[in-house]
Amino acid sequence: MSEITKTLKPPYYAVIFANQLSGEDEASYQHMAARMDELAACQPGFLGADSTRGADGFGITVSYWRDLAAITAWKQQGEHLQAQQSGKHKWYKNYAVHIAKVERAYDL
Amino acid sequence: MSEITKTLKPPYYAVIFANQLSGEDEASYQHMAARMDELAACQPGFLGADSTRGADGFGITVSYWRDLAAITAWKQQGEHLQAQQSGKHKWYKNYAVHIAKVERAYDL
Repeated sequence: MSEITKTLKPPYYAVIFANQLSGEDEASYQHMAARMDELAACQPGFLGADSTRGADGFGITVSYWRDLAAITAWKQQGEHLQAQQSGKHKWYKNYAVHIAKVERAYDL
Repeated sequence: MSEITKTLKPPYYAVIFANQLSGEDEASYQHMAARMDELAACQPGFLGADSTRGADGFGITVSYWRDLAAITAWKQQGEHLQAQQSGKHKWYKNYAVHIAKVERAYDL
């Protein structure tokens, strides 16, 4: 695995995406997920991301962003909009999104 | 698996704990982790938590709290303090903690 994203000096933003895969069309899910990682990393204001998924299909991805404007721009990116639609209707059984302002951060 | 923690009406707080297990003394780690879940759920101001870990030992736990005071009280809880020390010196290869104020939240 890659290293955990290092903490930065706050304030910045976190998008916490917790999701349960439906198991439907998993090959296209994997392809989309890799593509979204690639695209997010190129977005202005992207600071890093950590992601993991258990054998039960429950996953958490946390991405870090400079500000809310960067998060909004990513949410509205064309390919990402399509992925969100397919996620809602096909890949995810359910999910929760939290957008939160990082006030403190430390690491080991 | 249990259901994803439902989003609430902001503001509230998230503690994002990303960690890589060292693999050392895994039995005692599992025991402690179960105990901490139990204790956290009894803390005043605890709103819920989501947690997952991949086969590579990389895990993310996000716990949700009413306010910063509730997070501080949990951080200083006696058994939790001991667990933090053992985590630092034994169970975790590395970790990052982000404490963030939830400003928006939605779910499917």
